[in-house]
Amino acid sequence: MVNETQQSCSGSSSSRSDGGSSSGSESSKDNSRCSTPVLDADRHERLREKMRRRQEAGDRWFSLEFFPPRTANAAVNLISRFDRMGAGGPLFIDVTWHPAGDPGSDKETSSMIIANTAVNYCGLETILHMTCCNQTKDDITGHLQKAKRLGLKNIMALRGDPAGEEWEEEVDGFNHAVDLVKHIRSEFDDYFDICVAGYPKGHPEAESYETDLRHLKEKVFAGADFIITQLFFRPETFLKFIKDCQAIGITCPIIPGIFPIQGYHSLRQLVKLSKLEVPQEIKDVIEPIKDNDAAIRNYGVELAVSMCRELLDSGMVHGLHFYTLNREVATTEVLKRLGLWKEDPRRPLPWAVSAHPKRRVEDVRPIFWASRPKSYIYRTQEWDDFPNGRWGNSSSPAFGELKDYYLFYLKSKSPREELLKMWGEELTGEESVFEVFTCYITGEPNRNGYRVTCMPWNDDPLATETNLLKDQLEKVNRRGILTINSQPNINGKPSTDPIVGWGPSGGYVFQKAYLEFFTSSEIVTALLKVLKKYELRVNYHIVNVKGQNITNAPDLQPNAVTWGIFPGREIIQPTVVDPVSFLYWKDEAFALWIEQWAKLYEEESPSRMIIQYIHDNYYLVNLVDNDFPLENCLWQVVEDTFELLN
Amino acid sequence: MVNETQQSCSGSSSSRSDGGSSSGSESSKDNSRCSTPVLDADRHERLREKMRRRQEAGDRWFSLEFFPPRTANAAVNLISRFDRMGAGGPLFIDVTWHPAGDPGSDKETSSMIIANTAVNYCGLETILHMTCCNQTKDDITGHLQKAKRLGLKNIMALRGDPAGEEWEEEVDGFNHAVDLVKHIRSEFDDYFDICVAGYPKGHPEAESYETDLRHLKEKVFAGADFIITQLFFRPETFLKFIKDCQAIGITCPIIPGIFPIQGYHSLRQLVKLSKLEVPQEIKDVIEPIKDNDAAIRNYGVELAVSMCRELLDSGMVHGLHFYTLNREVATTEVLKRLGLWKEDPRRPLPWAVSAHPKRRVEDVRPIFWASRPKSYIYRTQEWDDFPNGRWGNSSSPAFGELKDYYLFYLKSKSPREELLKMWGEELTGEESVFEVFTCYITGEPNRNGYRVTCMPWNDDPLATETNLLKDQLEKVNRRGILTINSQPNINGKPSTDPIVGWGPSGGYVFQKAYLEFFTSSEIVTALLKVLKKYELRVNYHIVNVKGQNITNAPDLQPNAVTWGIFPGREIIQPTVVDPVSFLYWKDEAFALWIEQWAKLYEEESPSRMIIQYIHDNYYLVNLVDNDFPLENCLWQVVEDTFELLN
Repeated sequence: MVNETQQSCSGSSSSRSDGGSSSGSESSKDNSRCSTPVLDADRHERLREKMRRRQEAGDRWFSLEFFPPRTANAAVNLISRFDRMGAGGPLFIDVTWHPAGDPGSDKETSSMIIANTAVNYCGLETILHMTCCNQTKDDITGHLQKAKRLGLKNIMALRGDPAGEEWEEEVDGFNHAVDLVKHIRSEFDDYFDICVAGYPKGHPEAESYETDLRHLKEKVFAGADFIITQLFFRPETFLKFIKDCQAIGITCPIIPGIFPIQGYHSLRQLVKLSKLEVPQEIKDVIEPIKDNDAAIRNYGVELAVSMCRELLDSGMVHGLHFYTLNREVATTEVLKRLGLWKEDPRRPLPWAVSAHPKRRVEDVRPIFWASRPKSYIYRTQEWDDFPNGRWGNSSSPAFGELKDYYLFYLKSKSPREELLKMWGEELTGEESVFEVFTCYITGEPNRNGYRVTCMPWNDDPLATETNLLKDQLEKVNRRGILTINSQPNINGKPSTDPIVGWGPSGGYVFQKAYLEFFTSSEIVTALLKVLKKYELRVNYHIVNVKGQNITNAPDLQPNAVTWGIFPGREIIQPTVVDPVSFLYWKDEAFALWIEQWAKLYEEESPSRMIIQYIHDNYYLVNLVDNDFPLENCLWQVVEDTFELLN
Repeated sequence: MVNETQQSCSGSSSSRSDGGSSSGSESSKDNSRCSTPVLDADRHERLREKMRRRQEAGDRWFSLEFFPPRTANAAVNLISRFDRMGAGGPLFIDVTWHPAGDPGSDKETSSMIIANTAVNYCGLETILHMTCCNQTKDDITGHLQKAKRLGLKNIMALRGDPAGEEWEEEVDGFNHAVDLVKHIRSEFDDYFDICVAGYPKGHPEAESYETDLRHLKEKVFAGADFIITQLFFRPETFLKFIKDCQAIGITCPIIPGIFPIQGYHSLRQLVKLSKLEVPQEIKDVIEPIKDNDAAIRNYGVELAVSMCRELLDSGMVHGLHFYTLNREVATTEVLKRLGLWKEDPRRPLPWAVSAHPKRRVEDVRPIFWASRPKSYIYRTQEWDDFPNGRWGNSSSPAFGELKDYYLFYLKSKSPREELLKMWGEELTGEESVFEVFTCYITGEPNRNGYRVTCMPWNDDPLATETNLLKDQLEKVNRRGILTINSQPNINGKPSTDPIVGWGPSGGYVFQKAYLEFFTSSEIVTALLKVLKKYELRVNYHIVNVKGQNITNAPDLQPNAVTWGIFPGREIIQPTVVDPVSFLYWKDEAFALWIEQWAKLYEEESPSRMIIQYIHDNYYLVNLVDNDFPLENCLWQVVEDTFELLN
């Protein structure tokens, strides 16, 4: 139960002892406290604290290195990869700095923007690399200020490769990484966690291994918090290096850089760049199979696993840093074999938490964006304050407009041709649309034999939790209740439940049943008659694209639909149905019909007109069954509605 | 479901209709909203709005008039009466203004302080009377400012009785109630709700009934919100009056003043003061029985009931105002017979809500003061802001010191002699103290034959809810676990449950089991060993008078121990176990041993030394069982502790 989060909560202190007495605690009366319940220490600690806590607890961890993509499409893919590899539970990822790629710019392929996306939209603790040679102080300061503004908290300080052959050290310039470390500490005090590079074989340009060690010590003493090493091929290389570091007084964490060999060419290229020598025993294996990619990768995985095991077994290594080369398979395989990949990471909240420091206290969101968390983050990025505690405390829940449906981290992962195959090259009527929704729910192929794996409102296949409702959802979608969001009711399942659990262990989670769908005005008219029988039990909001709004919600109060009760904590209610933000969501939900679906077709084409008709005439409906301990009545509501229509 | 609370929430509007379409609602996006969930409209409405809402809903109501007491002891009694009669659910009470009794002063018997106590400490909507003749503008303004500062929102504007015979109207002075109404509106705008007096028979000093009606109309048009009438003896008197009022354009509520005859002398005195004539048919009944108080009271009740029925049946009367003469029996009897007395008033929250406007948003309190709500209000009276939402949002939970144990609204209702009979004229050891605690729990007489109906930490007999735990409590108190607060665990009972329910209907309430007690350091040592087995499941705080503090609570976070889930609302968590405020409570809880108990005995007497020993050496312990869906484990914890000691 000893919990270090108090350290991130300035001024707080809890006096505790297991013995019969402890220090007087009168003083704690005057202490301030965190303004929001701390659900998980991770969210409130800086990277170096997380590292220290894991080391003290004996927990092993890993991290992943990526480079920025070259094209916008590659950026979309990289972000999906962040999401997928993020699910395995890395302690952090890092994004390299490509001086040639305008790394500090606002381009979607810049190091800065990729790192920003990882932190804000993928919720990953992120280190941004930064090199300093050939740059002015103002440039560097500008980059750092921008990084800080975007919520980045960690910098890997590097010298970088000098441009041109005749590079000479500049007086007062940035000649070495240590200059950058000093600059960061002098200009930004303790704001950033700083990482520096270590070279287990010595830097290729260093006079000697010993000189290089001394340089490393200088970097650490200038303010670096931890070290990540260059790749190496033999575990003993690293183990000698770490002992040598310790011998000269370097005490910060030193993280080995692991490079799973993934192919002949990538290995050769890397070796050339890093001026490392591949040991003969590895060359001997690789040369004969150099044209067999799969064989090389298998060997690389094998080699990496065995080296990692040796490092971890030494007791000197707690975390492993992977050079992924932006690829997934080999690294994931190594991590799974090492048992470091989290198959079922515990969720601190039922939605993905952003890693931006400003959003660390965020613990409640409207349910509407459940499948579009990146859009929610985008539309609330200008908020100064996040509803910390009750949604109602939000001073001004004004959402940003969503005009940029094609921002690389918001747009569909699938290209137009695939979407047409899934959603229909040609629609013949509203029923063809019902079919698309139904196929998405059932997972069965559509009439042309394609599976519908995404929808305009959800770029991913159906969530495991929604699967619990599959049969009922199928039935209603077939008949024109076009569902885009739903959750079952839950009456106190353990917080460790693999499907619906979240938050610290020892708690209980609850949900009210929720159903959100588009439907015709004919069905809405019948539905409203049926809903009169369910007053008080069922809350509803029904709105069309013009904003005509029908609701029985008391005032403008949000309805908590997900909450959790935990040992020693206040109630957490992370998801609400909020009448005000529903009207902002409505704009987005209706626009997606046009932006993502109608625009796949020619203007004036019948298919486009069908979608346009639905957009113009359907209603967006949400229903909450407040009686969470009883059986979900929403299916009965829909059933009654269909009966009334017959 | 139409709910008018939106009106008290400036700028908010919800668009709702039962039809298929309604007004466009784009605009509501920009609206602000209430900063806290509105649990019950009553808490957020002003008196005139409550009156209107009840009238529209067809709900009948009553109100109660009291006069300030003459002595401090009488003040203690009056406050208990407020609590008891407040339980019946009056819409408001009013406190008369006694010019001779220094009514605006800080004396505990002043009109101002009694009204302040009713609002703040008894949670009653209160009207303060105020008379204006023979007073300067500055005096009046000073009184009104003070009333506002104390949280009073309603004034009954009266002329008052001129002092002396030769009173003459002053130019520019306060000659009539209408002058006071105008003054309040001009100096305080719409802050106060203003009530004025109506005279069904005409004011005794008025030229005529008609002139008096015109004066009444002037008062209303000057800004009065409603009228309470002088008492009368026949229903037709009032019904004629109300019709006459309406005929000349008075449209505000007119509330009949009901005077249940309670005795011969009080009737005579009142008649003399009010210059009313008692009808012959009443005199005929009363004169023969004038020495039989009980008979007169029975007759008075009968008469009042029949008159009230006639008034209510007329359809012109929605509320009844009772002149109680500070007595309980007759008025309560009339109200019960009319079915207006709320036998089981729904609680908006599990604790009594203060009626001070500043505290209307208050919806969370530490559990420690559950039996001492007035002390809690007293110690937090200087807070600018109440934790609205989570306890953690409280910016500075600094409690005022409690030095004034003898403030009339904080002190025990029982005199010293009675306390000695209950708690023992002479204590022979710690065991005699255990006995007192045990007798309080069981309700059985102590060894001298007296029932223990209060304790220093609880001035009332055991709560109904605590009764659920009686057997276990008895067992542990006998053995020196001296319980002062406890609640059973509740896993989702309907919010309408007569014992543990609170909040709007259709909801579910929950509790974690809680136990708070004093006990010896020997027991604490064993308890701590036992608690190791219950880590995570049981949170504890253990503190002695010196502030030595042992806890396993994570950081300084509060633990929610009572919460409710309601249709269409956020989660409400009205009770928490808060580590910071526990240390403030500790001071009070230990001090009560000395202030309320030890000081009953002579200095240096063995009895006093026993209490002093307990005060100096015992620990105050609180335990929470976090696993509310399972059977309460706290009894097992205590059982294990005793076993370990054997």
